[in-house]
Amino acid sequence: MEISRSSNGGNEVRRKIVDGVAGYVLEDVPHFSDYIGDLPTYPNPLRSNPAYSVVKQYFVNMDDTVAQKVVVHKDGPRGIHFRRAGPRQKVYFESDEVHACIVTCGGLCPGLNTVIREIVCGLYHMYGVSKILGIDGGYRGFYSKNTVTLTPKVVNDIHKRGGTILGTSRGGHDTMKIVDSIQDRGINQVFIIGGDGTQKGAAVIYEEIRRRGLKVSVAGIPKTIDNDIPVIDKSFGFDTAVEEAQRAINAAHVEAESIENGIGVVKLMGRYSGFIAMHATLASRDVDCCLIPESPFYLEGKGGLFEFVEKRLKENGHMVIVIAEGAGQDLVNASLESMSQKDASGNKLLQDVGLWISHGIKDHFASLHKMPINLKYIDPTYMIRAIPSNASDNVYCTLLAHSAIHGAMAGFTGFTVGPVNGRHAYIPFDRVTETQNKVVITDRMWARLLSSTNQPSFLSLNDVAGEEESPRPSVDGQNGDETGIRTGTENKVA
Amino acid sequence: MEISRSSNGGNEVRRKIVDGVAGYVLEDVPHFSDYIGDLPTYPNPLRSNPAYSVVKQYFVNMDDTVAQKVVVHKDGPRGIHFRRAGPRQKVYFESDEVHACIVTCGGLCPGLNTVIREIVCGLYHMYGVSKILGIDGGYRGFYSKNTVTLTPKVVNDIHKRGGTILGTSRGGHDTMKIVDSIQDRGINQVFIIGGDGTQKGAAVIYEEIRRRGLKVSVAGIPKTIDNDIPVIDKSFGFDTAVEEAQRAINAAHVEAESIENGIGVVKLMGRYSGFIAMHATLASRDVDCCLIPESPFYLEGKGGLFEFVEKRLKENGHMVIVIAEGAGQDLVNASLESMSQKDASGNKLLQDVGLWISHGIKDHFASLHKMPINLKYIDPTYMIRAIPSNASDNVYCTLLAHSAIHGAMAGFTGFTVGPVNGRHAYIPFDRVTETQNKVVITDRMWARLLSSTNQPSFLSLNDVAGEEESPRPSVDGQNGDETGIRTGTENKVA
Amino acid sequence: MEISRSSNGGNEVRRKIVDGVAGYVLEDVPHFSDYIGDLPTYPNPLRSNPAYSVVKQYFVNMDDTVAQKVVVHKDGPRGIHFRRAGPRQKVYFESDEVHACIVTCGGLCPGLNTVIREIVCGLYHMYGVSKILGIDGGYRGFYSKNTVTLTPKVVNDIHKRGGTILGTSRGGHDTMKIVDSIQDRGINQVFIIGGDGTQKGAAVIYEEIRRRGLKVSVAGIPKTIDNDIPVIDKSFGFDTAVEEAQRAINAAHVEAESIENGIGVVKLMGRYSGFIAMHATLASRDVDCCLIPESPFYLEGKGGLFEFVEKRLKENGHMVIVIAEGAGQDLVNASLESMSQKDASGNKLLQDVGLWISHGIKDHFASLHKMPINLKYIDPTYMIRAIPSNASDNVYCTLLAHSAIHGAMAGFTGFTVGPVNGRHAYIPFDRVTETQNKVVITDRMWARLLSSTNQPSFLSLNDVAGEEESPRPSVDGQNGDETGIRTGTENKVA
Amino acid sequence: MEISRSSNGGNEVRRKIVDGVAGYVLEDVPHFSDYIGDLPTYPNPLRSNPAYSVVKQYFVNMDDTVAQKVVVHKDGPRGIHFRRAGPRQKVYFESDEVHACIVTCGGLCPGLNTVIREIVCGLYHMYGVSKILGIDGGYRGFYSKNTVTLTPKVVNDIHKRGGTILGTSRGGHDTMKIVDSIQDRGINQVFIIGGDGTQKGAAVIYEEIRRRGLKVSVAGIPKTIDNDIPVIDKSFGFDTAVEEAQRAINAAHVEAESIENGIGVVKLMGRYSGFIAMHATLASRDVDCCLIPESPFYLEGKGGLFEFVEKRLKENGHMVIVIAEGAGQDLVNASLESMSQKDASGNKLLQDVGLWISHGIKDHFASLHKMPINLKYIDPTYMIRAIPSNASDNVYCTLLAHSAIHGAMAGFTGFTVGPVNGRHAYIPFDRVTETQNKVVITDRMWARLLSSTNQPSFLSLNDVAGEEESPRPSVDGQNGDETGIRTGTENKVA
Repeated sequence: MEISRSSNGGNEVRRKIVDGVAGYVLEDVPHFSDYIGDLPTYPNPLRSNPAYSVVKQYFVNMDDTVAQKVVVHKDGPRGIHFRRAGPRQKVYFESDEVHACIVTCGGLCPGLNTVIREIVCGLYHMYGVSKILGIDGGYRGFYSKNTVTLTPKVVNDIHKRGGTILGTSRGGHDTMKIVDSIQDRGINQVFIIGGDGTQKGAAVIYEEIRRRGLKVSVAGIPKTIDNDIPVIDKSFGFDTAVEEAQRAINAAHVEAESIENGIGVVKLMGRYSGFIAMHATLASRDVDCCLIPESPFYLEGKGGLFEFVEKRLKENGHMVIVIAEGAGQDLVNASLESMSQKDASGNKLLQDVGLWISHGIKDHFASLHKMPINLKYIDPTYMIRAIPSNASDNVYCTLLAHSAIHGAMAGFTGFTVGPVNGRHAYIPFDRVTETQNKVVITDRMWARLLSSTNQPSFLSLNDVAGEEESPRPSVDGQNGDETGIRTGTENKVA
Repeated sequence: MEISRSSNGGNEVRRKIVDGVAGYVLEDVPHFSDYIGDLPTYPNPLRSNPAYSVVKQYFVNMDDTVAQKVVVHKDGPRGIHFRRAGPRQKVYFESDEVHACIVTCGGLCPGLNTVIREIVCGLYHMYGVSKILGIDGGYRGFYSKNTVTLTPKVVNDIHKRGGTILGTSRGGHDTMKIVDSIQDRGINQVFIIGGDGTQKGAAVIYEEIRRRGLKVSVAGIPKTIDNDIPVIDKSFGFDTAVEEAQRAINAAHVEAESIENGIGVVKLMGRYSGFIAMHATLASRDVDCCLIPESPFYLEGKGGLFEFVEKRLKENGHMVIVIAEGAGQDLVNASLESMSQKDASGNKLLQDVGLWISHGIKDHFASLHKMPINLKYIDPTYMIRAIPSNASDNVYCTLLAHSAIHGAMAGFTGFTVGPVNGRHAYIPFDRVTETQNKVVITDRMWARLLSSTNQPSFLSLNDVAGEEESPRPSVDGQNGDETGIRTGTENKVA
Repeated sequence: MEISRSSNGGNEVRRKIVDGVAGYVLEDVPHFSDYIGDLPTYPNPLRSNPAYSVVKQYFVNMDDTVAQKVVVHKDGPRGIHFRRAGPRQKVYFESDEVHACIVTCGGLCPGLNTVIREIVCGLYHMYGVSKILGIDGGYRGFYSKNTVTLTPKVVNDIHKRGGTILGTSRGGHDTMKIVDSIQDRGINQVFIIGGDGTQKGAAVIYEEIRRRGLKVSVAGIPKTIDNDIPVIDKSFGFDTAVEEAQRAINAAHVEAESIENGIGVVKLMGRYSGFIAMHATLASRDVDCCLIPESPFYLEGKGGLFEFVEKRLKENGHMVIVIAEGAGQDLVNASLESMSQKDASGNKLLQDVGLWISHGIKDHFASLHKMPINLKYIDPTYMIRAIPSNASDNVYCTLLAHSAIHGAMAGFTGFTVGPVNGRHAYIPFDRVTETQNKVVITDRMWARLLSSTNQPSFLSLNDVAGEEESPRPSVDGQNGDETGIRTGTENKVA
Repeated sequence: MEISRSSNGGNEVRRKIVDGVAGYVLEDVPHFSDYIGDLPTYPNPLRSNPAYSVVKQYFVNMDDTVAQKVVVHKDGPRGIHFRRAGPRQKVYFESDEVHACIVTCGGLCPGLNTVIREIVCGLYHMYGVSKILGIDGGYRGFYSKNTVTLTPKVVNDIHKRGGTILGTSRGGHDTMKIVDSIQDRGINQVFIIGGDGTQKGAAVIYEEIRRRGLKVSVAGIPKTIDNDIPVIDKSFGFDTAVEEAQRAINAAHVEAESIENGIGVVKLMGRYSGFIAMHATLASRDVDCCLIPESPFYLEGKGGLFEFVEKRLKENGHMVIVIAEGAGQDLVNASLESMSQKDASGNKLLQDVGLWISHGIKDHFASLHKMPINLKYIDPTYMIRAIPSNASDNVYCTLLAHSAIHGAMAGFTGFTVGPVNGRHAYIPFDRVTETQNKVVITDRMWARLLSSTNQPSFLSLNDVAGEEESPRPSVDGQNGDETGIRTGTENKVA
């Protein structure tokens, strides 16, 4: 009925693609049965859980899928689907056979502790699993540190604290040593919480585990405070970050308003995408100019930033600028050419664009215009990253953790989790690492921001001509940007 | 190409139904052109707005629709659609012709001021409208109070304050006097922010305006902190309310934990639906039992609440109970038969179930069991209602306000706004007032809660047998409950 | 040089009074040397602590005292003094001989965990003490529960949480069993954190320990969120409570302002004193009427509350009333005569005056005046009690804990600690339990409040005639009420 | 009866010193009667204010004073006194004669708006004054900007906002133009809120007004978030700043704890004094090292900072450093010799010591030790300055405002206000500007901090030998440092 086109070539990522009956293409995730024969299965313990006894259709059917892009044209192509997340009738582990571990990698993000908590409590309460280890200090902790025993009691209150109780790290690690450690300790479920680089690492770990033929499930929970992970609807911690960013913007506004020609500059997270800056600006209403990586800008001359600053100061006497971490990198680089470095995780160490632009503005007004300005620069990054997740992110983290658990128990592996068009799905690692989700500056959300701030677009019509899309009646409403949360990379990955 | 089945009978709601080409049914909203002939139209001023100049397909096509229920079965029925919200190429008002007014009715809800602000700023900045009035004190203010002049300057900071700067009221009003006032003052756009009863009132006002043949657009923005409005994805202020509810739950937890056999009882909003209680419980993780209107419970005997309380106290020494305002009304009524009253808005004045259950538990343990308990009751209702909206609700309120503005400018009337399956739509008033959105206790979200709290379901399998649904492969993923925010009434309204 | 007048009669409290050289009277606290002979002493380990090595005069001299009332008249009486708190050159315990325990009793109060933390960390870091027990669940825990081992690591983060990690209880206990337990476990320092009743209990425990001739120091840390403990400058947690009370008042204000004839009623803590209500009113500025136990009021007739409410509503359209828990008890009792009960701690269970007055106001306006009002009642009590202490209280709790530690190490016993006129002192138990600190309504602070709210004083000049004080030039500035924190009972206890 | 020794020489500050009967020296403030003859007086309107009718001794006697240092030695010298603040029986203005103005200068500080509010409301409600102007943008606003009309309605909610509604500025101004403007506009009460430099400016303005013989009262309200104003007990906004600083410290702690060899560095306000850093450290308990201007330190070698950092990282794996803005300036200057500049207010623009030390630590560990560290630097300065004042500061600001009002109405001029030893006083300008209040590192409070952090003292006993004080029994308890709020410069200014 279905045709598997499992592509697999050498070092290439093996992609498991299935043409679905309904005309869609299923980008499936690996399963133990792909490389281990004759595995026994067991009835899902949730079947006898009283909490679930009254739920109709609690279990996901094996062929349930989630569409990446909603298409309701009668004869339109059915598009890409992913396997739906959720509990299956049959599981591939007995409860006391499971030996799970959890690792957190990369920078801090509100909600890390909630995800840890919910993996532990979910495994324990839903599947009766009690052997759960925490890996200390990120990937390297697999082979260089002692593990932490995790129980529902240990993790009971951790969601009220920021950071990660497991510690984290950035930078290189040795995949072989990690898989050796997994094998030696008898771990058979590995939950990996981290960003782009971490998920790439998870993909390689999965490949090595598969190569060794181990019955070990590798499940990723994608983490990025910037909301720049593609495919999924949004990333955990983002909501909390936007909320907390308001404090800094408000302070900048108060400072700017209290003094003649006051300028408040706030740098917010976002190396490659400006989601936090954009949403914080839309939520706050105190921002006069929002600069993001996706929208190039220039300083000097007609239509440039300096001109706008001068105009706004003359009109209102003060202004607030929000700038995403990765905005204007070409300008920064042009002016500071010799300073490129690499940080341990391999990302280029971005220059602090907030300090750069603050000094640029000060210099401009000091040297050229004789217009005395009062600029206050605020960098709330670490204060935002370190707070506990808010209620909305707490609920969301729970669902992510549960999806990962259900997938691992059902024998899936080499997958990451997340909601796609409102439904939680299992997604191949490479789907979330091959690109970044970005603010589409030709979408309505950015237009709303421009309209709200009245800032220059720094764009001519020519600039966007190349991105033209074929006009068609969008009965399908292709991008759901109206709900306030993203998206738009769908087109690119389709 | 399309067949209108405009049903219209006497006092009946006139429903405008269109069979769409793609096989769906469009439940359309009224338009000036339905009852006024030969109206001139004008190019949308947004066309020349630089902020929108680079946005591709910014304008919604006249035939764009939004599906209430996502169906991707190849041959499945196409379901109900609504008209998509957003700016149109042509508008039915010139900028300086518009005379808008805004009114807020019913109980407080975080975000009211943000909606007011964004209607004012949106009309001003996007459409060049500067004549905007605030109606003081709800519907009755149309004829009994002076109006308030609203400008971008006046509303600039109001989103940082709770409540509504316009004031509000509950209870009866005189539709004729309201429409007289609208007519006398020359108002031609009426923005009505309020709940169930208010939207019903708006429908009647629209009918009278239509009867008089006036070119006045009546646009509703649905408000309910309880998230119990059907059709739309969620209501504004809900996120903020859940966030703030955490404080009360946390306090109850601290109090309960500090004393032997400590019980913390927190009453949360939710007359007819338990969304706030459910989400606050899932987010907080400190709750041992969550009682909502949708899930009947009983106190005495095996499987009852008292038994569970005793069990939990013996296990843990303390517990927290969250109870929605409208939970257990049958029990309250049975014990307090003679106390029914009506409040001014026509809703029955519900007895305070929090006090009722607190006393019930105290009495039970005092009289029967000789087990001394320490119960602390917290009712944070007014402290939750009165706070300003959080960042997420601020962004959401902006989109609601903009949808309403675009609709009014485009000549639609008699509509309310809200996101349906992630896309903002114009919805006929009766669609959002004919029923309430409720927690579906046979869905996964409630099961997650039961699993998280380990509370009794108070249900036997017989109780749910009648609601059985025919099993079918749900490729479509019928309800999107996994994103954390609702829903489930779709089935019922379809 | 000094004459001890140690009064000691049967069941009477033995009071240790010394006539000081400078003409003052020292109300001293007991010391081991009063009833145990030939105790060895040791050099204070702080002498060799590098942190204290550079502090001049760090050690308190044996004859340092603290004046209860500042008197600088050349020939005035010197007044009452207390022994100054602080480290002594000699201590009566070797570090590894100390076996301390901590118990918390009574209702919750912000800062309990900070006091616990600082006793543990102070004993450990300053005196090298590592045997410290926590008593679980208040006084009864001495004989009915297991103890908790307390180390700096265990208590490291507890000051960031509300409540008390040791648990608490109210009500009766068996002094003999407690002292038996102390003796059996070999405890020799007992730190007792609690209110009025608890300090009375501590006095009895001390008497029994002395009767048995044990070298066990009994040190009290007075706790009352109400700030109603006499002699000391203020009680810990009070600042935090006033801060948090603002939230409730602000919510009441928002609710009241949003509706016609809106009345917000907020009940705040204060059974016998109105300090929280008074300071919250002064800090918030949103209150129209503040009712406290110290200032009698009446409802009906000229100059009554109802008249004022009506007047204020007619002027402003809304109002906020703050009422302390113990205000108007005579009125409550008169109307609800038969309802008196006792709570477990022996305090009479006060009726909820907030509900009482809310219904009184509603009834009045419903039945008599035909003036429709909208009253919202908020009781934030448990939400205030359960929060962690703020920065100011954290610092204060540290000083209290250190005073207690230094006193116990120096061989003092039967004392409680607290600042008196800005200097920390050791105070005999009975001094802080024999009366309550109250708002002096003929002082300036209350006048400031009346001036700020413009509420009626509910007093005629006759009412205060009896309290007349002889006029004299107050060079001494007798009560320091101007700093914002209290009071005036000094006169009474002198 | 009393002998005035009014010193007055040329450009010197004229100091008004009176030898009091009780043996003390009164450092008095100027009064209209010092330079204007035969001024009429009027009964204080408060006499007929019902709020004050029941207050005994509400009015301050003309000879009430406040002692700077409490001395109770029988024969000790009586010390310096100041005139007590408060309402007088007679005032020198009729209500409708008063034309007041308010100006705010210098950097932002929580509570500015509260002081403004309370001056306006206090003048209006207590003295019936309704002509009150706000000067826009600091001193220069007197002659370069329009004024703002201030009424109780205008200022009603401003205490809930950060910043100053009047705007502020730093830097030079023209005294003559200011006094011209005061004279031209007919202003006769000038309320000046600002720091060190501002109070110096106020002194000069007063001198010029006196020179011109104008009946204009000049009253200062001292402002410094750093708490470095001498004589007064503490400065407004300080409490709020310490509270808010906790957030940054907590974030630094979470960041540091989550990563191997994590170091969190937090820079806090304090150019010349480390009160905020010290109190925030004591309150937070998460700090491993607190560096302040008063306590010199060094980086390299034995006992240096680098050694301590390495030690602490090896012990705990992470650490938090709090550094006051002005700490280690000698070190900064030594390494960055050529960078000194002046800011507009004449203070030298301090280099950012937080960035300096962060880079120093990074460099040290990168180059010398091969120990990889992860340092996160947080500068919350502007986020702290911009928040609204907390409840405790709100009450305090009210008392400051009232003191200033009472003084101006009573005909005093050339004074600043503040509590001295717990009693509010009128203080000559030069007293609060001639020095700065500093943390006394040989006092107990700093010792407590050292004991709590276990950081090195960076001091040898030799370093403090020169400051030795003669030992004497301190019955008087000279410095009140035990209450948690400051300190001991009294000795120095005496």
